[in-house]
Amino acid sequence: MNAEIIAVGSELLLGQIANTNAQFLSQQMAELGINVYFHTVVGDNALRLQKAIEIAQTRANLIIFTGGLGPTKDDLTKETIARILQRELVIDEESLRSIEEYFARTNRTMTENNKKQALVLKGAEVLKNEHGMAPGMVVTIDDITYMLLPGPPKEMQPMFLKYGRPLLMNRLERQERIESRVLRFFGIGESQLETEIEDFIDGQSNPTIAPLAGDGEVTLRLTAKHHSAVEAKKSLDKIEKAILERVGHYFYGYNDDTLFTKVIEQLKRNNKTIAAAESLTGGRFLAELTAISGASEVVRGGIVCYTNEVKEHVLRIPHSVLETDGAVSEPCAKLLAEHVRTLCRADIGVSFTGVAGPSSLEGKPVGTVYVGIAMDGRETEVYSLTFGGDRETIRTRTAKYGCFAVLKKLAAAF
Amino acid sequence: MNAEIIAVGSELLLGQIANTNAQFLSQQMAELGINVYFHTVVGDNALRLQKAIEIAQTRANLIIFTGGLGPTKDDLTKETIARILQRELVIDEESLRSIEEYFARTNRTMTENNKKQALVLKGAEVLKNEHGMAPGMVVTIDDITYMLLPGPPKEMQPMFLKYGRPLLMNRLERQERIESRVLRFFGIGESQLETEIEDFIDGQSNPTIAPLAGDGEVTLRLTAKHHSAVEAKKSLDKIEKAILERVGHYFYGYNDDTLFTKVIEQLKRNNKTIAAAESLTGGRFLAELTAISGASEVVRGGIVCYTNEVKEHVLRIPHSVLETDGAVSEPCAKLLAEHVRTLCRADIGVSFTGVAGPSSLEGKPVGTVYVGIAMDGRETEVYSLTFGGDRETIRTRTAKYGCFAVLKKLAAAF
Repeated sequence: MNAEIIAVGSELLLGQIANTNAQFLSQQMAELGINVYFHTVVGDNALRLQKAIEIAQTRANLIIFTGGLGPTKDDLTKETIARILQRELVIDEESLRSIEEYFARTNRTMTENNKKQALVLKGAEVLKNEHGMAPGMVVTIDDITYMLLPGPPKEMQPMFLKYGRPLLMNRLERQERIESRVLRFFGIGESQLETEIEDFIDGQSNPTIAPLAGDGEVTLRLTAKHHSAVEAKKSLDKIEKAILERVGHYFYGYNDDTLFTKVIEQLKRNNKTIAAAESLTGGRFLAELTAISGASEVVRGGIVCYTNEVKEHVLRIPHSVLETDGAVSEPCAKLLAEHVRTLCRADIGVSFTGVAGPSSLEGKPVGTVYVGIAMDGRETEVYSLTFGGDRETIRTRTAKYGCFAVLKKLAAAF
Repeated sequence: MNAEIIAVGSELLLGQIANTNAQFLSQQMAELGINVYFHTVVGDNALRLQKAIEIAQTRANLIIFTGGLGPTKDDLTKETIARILQRELVIDEESLRSIEEYFARTNRTMTENNKKQALVLKGAEVLKNEHGMAPGMVVTIDDITYMLLPGPPKEMQPMFLKYGRPLLMNRLERQERIESRVLRFFGIGESQLETEIEDFIDGQSNPTIAPLAGDGEVTLRLTAKHHSAVEAKKSLDKIEKAILERVGHYFYGYNDDTLFTKVIEQLKRNNKTIAAAESLTGGRFLAELTAISGASEVVRGGIVCYTNEVKEHVLRIPHSVLETDGAVSEPCAKLLAEHVRTLCRADIGVSFTGVAGPSSLEGKPVGTVYVGIAMDGRETEVYSLTFGGDRETIRTRTAKYGCFAVLKKLAAAF
């Protein structure tokens, strides 16, 4: 099965929103082992929508539409498909009732145009909308399956998961399954990683290996096709093992893992707590950690020491260190990590100091970074780093480097 | 000029990332008055990319590509276009030098495949990449303009703004200008805002008024078409004035302003400094503020008091308050704001405490939030709020509410 996802809505072409529906549905298709070869976005215009559908009919046998099912004159998806396929639109009584109930429940008056939402393609399977009004539908004509879903993600996602996905899985039952696994790396560039495992990538067919870089990280997506899920898993395990023998030092997790979720997970596993002194990163490191549910078990807190006064008066960095070595220095990073650990009574203290730019600081160039890690019974380590890029890039990479260093430290210590 | 935006990358079809590049470029095109009729996403596959280009050639005279300019074998955009247009690829010496410098600066070894990034279509205008390696390019052949931009938004966006956009504006010179202005609101829902100015929206034609909601904020995009930029600006000023007479209380800024950039701007203007005590938000408020270049002039720092021990021992909240009222309480928010102000020697102290979920805390339900603001010579104010949504939503709205409160306080005080 080859799918194309067509999003209908002028708001997408005006850039008012991103096409996150296509992302969600693509993830779903990947899980189901359905190839997605194209996404198309088209505005609320009958002629251009018709052309987009005609093109999709030549290259896909599953066309998923999002948007254009609403009550207004702009909403044209059903009407256009009905015309192309020469299918009647008929009122779905259950949908009409539920639209009427929806208005009653929210104490609003139902205007006449809302009835249009209950129209469905004759012969289509109706997908109930439990979070809005417009129902979805699925119909197969001339070997092409058309699935129509509403535009708002809060309606589309639950509808697809509850009704659309099981329906597709039913049709796929006898087909080949795709198993996919993402390996996540930090501290190595995309081209270096690719060079290290070039022979695997060149020799790939099943599983395939797809590298992707972003935000200072590189991922490898391994994808295996097999009739048996067990066989697929085995072949993924094998290639993963071979890859990690070469570049395992930079590996930190799988799939949806992030450096921050791994830090929380490993702190919990080792029963350790953490605190941070953030100069350069200004709270970013702790904000990312505390965004994770359950962080309060292991994150004690920390100090955003954006000025030298806060470093001196709250974190007790001697004035002489700030005068002589400066705030952006190895001695300062060392003391910040140690003092924040003590002050917040944590097992591990991490510190971040450096120059995010745009201007240099204390005569040190933009991108100069020190990350300190203090842990009970061990000598405090300070990593001296140089990052390229703008302010945001430098701060992000620094916070991530802190995670990577904590993970390495925990792995070495326990 | 009619544009189509083609994003190239299998990671988009697998749902690993959303096509935010198309959104950004669509916004840009809307501002320039260039129609965008289609977005297409295609994978790293030469044949399917070729087909997508051939379709675009029939319906657009400006085709903007993002992605596929990198060093790996997957990166096929230039190569495929070169084949279709029968144009040679040649090394751009300046780009090659800058790639070599990039590796030298970041202390990494340049592998051979990186040279491929310096290849450009013969005769193309090269767009410098100041945030990465692969240059962009623009070439016009048979009345169709092809603009190739890199995939990572951090490279694509500055490249487009600095080099791509001026180039397009040059070509548009004699056309009708579209002037657009975004008004930003916080603390009012989309439907309420729409109801308040319903008569303006219904009566709109030029300028048009387009509301959009997201992340607890609502924006109104006003767009005027005129041959004279002066006339366009006048008509925008007029409708803006009428709108703000009704809902000005919730208005905080224009266009790319954020609540955080406004806070930094207003602190600078009033020559005041700020510090924050962040329990609920875990560093998020300060991280957002310090992400802004120049924040160090006005942000002193703060305490991430994620545990009661840090509240008690670092911020000197009396044990009795934590015992009796709890950490999530008005008295605690009040003292946190006052103490962090004193501790960090700032003019304004802000505090955030509450329940982000998923579990309730101290018997208080998820979404209970207190935001405190202490300022010299004024009574400390504490806002008691209730937010719906998940952990991330609650934390984001809380941090934004802090900004809104600071802005109102500064406006009232000076």
